[in-house]
Amino acid sequence: MADTADCEIIEHHVEEEMEKEGARSRAAPSRPGSVAPSDREGGTQSSHRLLAYSDALISIIATVMILPVAHTKMGNNEELRESVQLLLTTKIAVYLMTFLIVTVAWAAHIRLFQVIVRIDDCLALLNLACMMLITFLPYTFSLMAAFPENVLGILLFCGCVMLMGVIQAGIVLYAFGRPFLLNEQIQISENRTFYKHHILKVIMRVPIMCFFASVFSFIFFQLSYALLAVVIFLPYVSQSLKWCRSKAIGPVQESPDSVLFYTYLPDEPLSKDRVEAFSDGVYAIVATLLILDICEDNVPDPTVVREQFGGSLTAALRVYGPEYLAYFGSFATVGLLWFAHHSLFLHVTQTTRLMGLLNTFSLAFVGGLPLAYQLTHEFPPDSRNELEAIQISCVIIFFAGIFQLTIWVVALRGERETLHPYVRYGGREHVFMLAKLSLYPCVALGTFFLTCVLSRFSAAIFHLMEITVPVAFLVLRLLVRVGVALLRLLFCPDGPDPRAAGGEEGEEEEEEEEARVPFNTLVT
Amino acid sequence: MADTADCEIIEHHVEEEMEKEGARSRAAPSRPGSVAPSDREGGTQSSHRLLAYSDALISIIATVMILPVAHTKMGNNEELRESVQLLLTTKIAVYLMTFLIVTVAWAAHIRLFQVIVRIDDCLALLNLACMMLITFLPYTFSLMAAFPENVLGILLFCGCVMLMGVIQAGIVLYAFGRPFLLNEQIQISENRTFYKHHILKVIMRVPIMCFFASVFSFIFFQLSYALLAVVIFLPYVSQSLKWCRSKAIGPVQESPDSVLFYTYLPDEPLSKDRVEAFSDGVYAIVATLLILDICEDNVPDPTVVREQFGGSLTAALRVYGPEYLAYFGSFATVGLLWFAHHSLFLHVTQTTRLMGLLNTFSLAFVGGLPLAYQLTHEFPPDSRNELEAIQISCVIIFFAGIFQLTIWVVALRGERETLHPYVRYGGREHVFMLAKLSLYPCVALGTFFLTCVLSRFSAAIFHLMEITVPVAFLVLRLLVRVGVALLRLLFCPDGPDPRAAGGEEGEEEEEEEEARVPFNTLVT
Repeated sequence: MADTADCEIIEHHVEEEMEKEGARSRAAPSRPGSVAPSDREGGTQSSHRLLAYSDALISIIATVMILPVAHTKMGNNEELRESVQLLLTTKIAVYLMTFLIVTVAWAAHIRLFQVIVRIDDCLALLNLACMMLITFLPYTFSLMAAFPENVLGILLFCGCVMLMGVIQAGIVLYAFGRPFLLNEQIQISENRTFYKHHILKVIMRVPIMCFFASVFSFIFFQLSYALLAVVIFLPYVSQSLKWCRSKAIGPVQESPDSVLFYTYLPDEPLSKDRVEAFSDGVYAIVATLLILDICEDNVPDPTVVREQFGGSLTAALRVYGPEYLAYFGSFATVGLLWFAHHSLFLHVTQTTRLMGLLNTFSLAFVGGLPLAYQLTHEFPPDSRNELEAIQISCVIIFFAGIFQLTIWVVALRGERETLHPYVRYGGREHVFMLAKLSLYPCVALGTFFLTCVLSRFSAAIFHLMEITVPVAFLVLRLLVRVGVALLRLLFCPDGPDPRAAGGEEGEEEEEEEEARVPFNTLVT
Repeated sequence: MADTADCEIIEHHVEEEMEKEGARSRAAPSRPGSVAPSDREGGTQSSHRLLAYSDALISIIATVMILPVAHTKMGNNEELRESVQLLLTTKIAVYLMTFLIVTVAWAAHIRLFQVIVRIDDCLALLNLACMMLITFLPYTFSLMAAFPENVLGILLFCGCVMLMGVIQAGIVLYAFGRPFLLNEQIQISENRTFYKHHILKVIMRVPIMCFFASVFSFIFFQLSYALLAVVIFLPYVSQSLKWCRSKAIGPVQESPDSVLFYTYLPDEPLSKDRVEAFSDGVYAIVATLLILDICEDNVPDPTVVREQFGGSLTAALRVYGPEYLAYFGSFATVGLLWFAHHSLFLHVTQTTRLMGLLNTFSLAFVGGLPLAYQLTHEFPPDSRNELEAIQISCVIIFFAGIFQLTIWVVALRGERETLHPYVRYGGREHVFMLAKLSLYPCVALGTFFLTCVLSRFSAAIFHLMEITVPVAFLVLRLLVRVGVALLRLLFCPDGPDPRAAGGEEGEEEEEEEEARVPFNTLVT
């Protein structure tokens, strides 16, 4: 208790110190809250809330293209099935590509605001303009998908990207003209001009490629698509290759200064706050997607209730029963996946680009969840479609979960920088974290195979899973402890102190069969 | 620069200090990030991200009922106008009531987690269950609105509220059983049991009233509605009366301890972080509402383009022109209102319940904006409907802005606790803040009266406003400076040092005529 009190006193003292400092000089580098305006024209502000708002906007936009997918009516018409499936596949592809493009724009936004750490009114307004263009990207993309041979979609997309490039270049020039807005490291660096040129070069690369793509679209539009694909994937591919080479034949340090920012290396740090904020936004939108539909569509019309159901509202609502069930199921699953994500990121001390990319993949699958749940209840019981829908749900849950687990595995690779001691190898919470992260993938895989074998009871198995998983999360700590104790009893009854050995031994636990392989390969 | 470096060193040092502390003891009270697990069963965690996620969910749910309003097709049918308007009024009423009820639940959630400052896995899961119930409230409410004479809506609503009460009571009991999860003040307090009973009493009041409401619904359902209305408004009314009395005849201190939490007084502090997070969520959802619709509905069908527009995609998209315009208009307006809100809250150091309430009112109007913008483009040019739609938009913008201004006015009343020195009376940024916050109300009011007078050019005036306001925000600082200088030249050419006098003088500025009255009454 005394420690706590001391600690708070220190913290409080520092806050006061910083407040005084802020009043005197301008650049107190504290992130949340308070103002430390400069003496120049225009007060500078902490960029914290601007970034939170941007994250919220971008996360909504990233998930928006799931709506056309979710609203595709499947029906039971076996004849139309082929064409509906084709339409659905297109829409899902649009959703995934939008998600990817928007997250690429988001990553660029993070990188930009890791260099510019303070803002003023002008930057805030420029950023809002940039956000408006980002929100328009999904639409241009769906135009491209609907009319692949029309140049208008390409032109609109390229126009948005070029405008964004111009605005971002404007932001960079503006910020370098007022160095107190910049990152400490750049602010005190001597070759600030070098940084400016490097950043501008990286930022303008994409808009210039888009300019060529829009020019080519009039001549030979297939080339434009190829160019756009290159624009999006090139940095990943080339830098991953470079990174692999550096791992194989030793590091090649070209210019040590430029490596700090805008490197595209998988180890480049990515603001953890923003990864969390973005993920929270996606999880929140996805969790509520179905209730949005329910609130709008599933309030029966009074006249219909009177005529078709004899005035009985209960009977009228019973028709919507499956919708409610789908809502609760998807909310619970998304909520629990958020819970696992939250537990993981509590113990992550630094996120890297690679972890961010894996997180994006996980979120892309999470976005498909409400749709999958909706499908499971749209078909008649015991039909082939129902079985397929349930299996698709299992696959989506599995991938959403397995990418979360992979984030942890990647973090374990560089555990000194990226993880809290508790969850490192041998840490107190290591086994428990493994159990938490592997619960959903294991359960989804189990359900999938069970439904393959007992296809007649697939719906019952699926509903049982929905109910048991939340309970499993509640008693997980107990389960893990019992499991570890049992294993210890079986394999080494005279082992060392259980606390110290818990970490290593836990890997043999029954629940984590799948997860073991990557661990062992990494350990050795 | 030296100050900054010192400051960072201190900050860094404290972080290290706290990490060590956290490793040794359990209850390092730092909010963001890192873990400080206890030695007991179950690691405790900072509640920061759980609250951010809850805020995101609640803000989405609060605004969801605007969708049925926005999707009501108006058409130009003059005969159906009456019935459509009645329907629209009902839906708007449902939206406003939902917003109010959800924000009441949100305020209760804030209060609860001001007492419980650390969480563990069990609390996180209980909170998720609570969130699921909150997300279901809008639906029960729209059932009540559609079938006012059916008890099912009341029963569902009361059932949700009662379940939430039980879960929240469970959270309180669980947290008081593990005191290290609680607020410092309660943790070290001697009469912790008194607190527990007080909080439980306050929490259970609403579910018990709902229980009676659900019982009465079978006998005399009008009474249930009255009871529910009392449940929601009673705390505000009774505590406002109490507060007014205490202001009039002096403070009546009953039990000084209980006043700290769960008081419902207008001065009770409300977590500023959470007010900001909730507002960000609402602004983000509202800003993207129209693009959600555009992405889903406004991609023309290839066959339609081929048959009706001769294969010209541009011609097909021109039909949707007004929708794009409405989107950009509403995004810009919502974005700039967010910008004003952001600027205000940068200078707010503590939020009170009253400020939170005013913020809620402002947000409720912001939620209606996309709808209003959509209406302005749905009617034929120069029709009476178009004029009405434009005037409604102006009124909504006016109220959204004026409530923001009122937040500042309320904050100025207790400026020592609630405001940063820069924006207090006579502060350096006082005039500028006034100009920022009064820009939208003034412009909206001006546009409203202009459209009344020049009704023929209403659309042109409205579009001109949409374009000029962002520019006005960009050059606002310059405008204010010029305005103040001009006024000084006119009224007191031999005045004191302009910096010191800037605050008081600014109130006479031309743009802020409306805002002056409350200020003067408050000052005197």
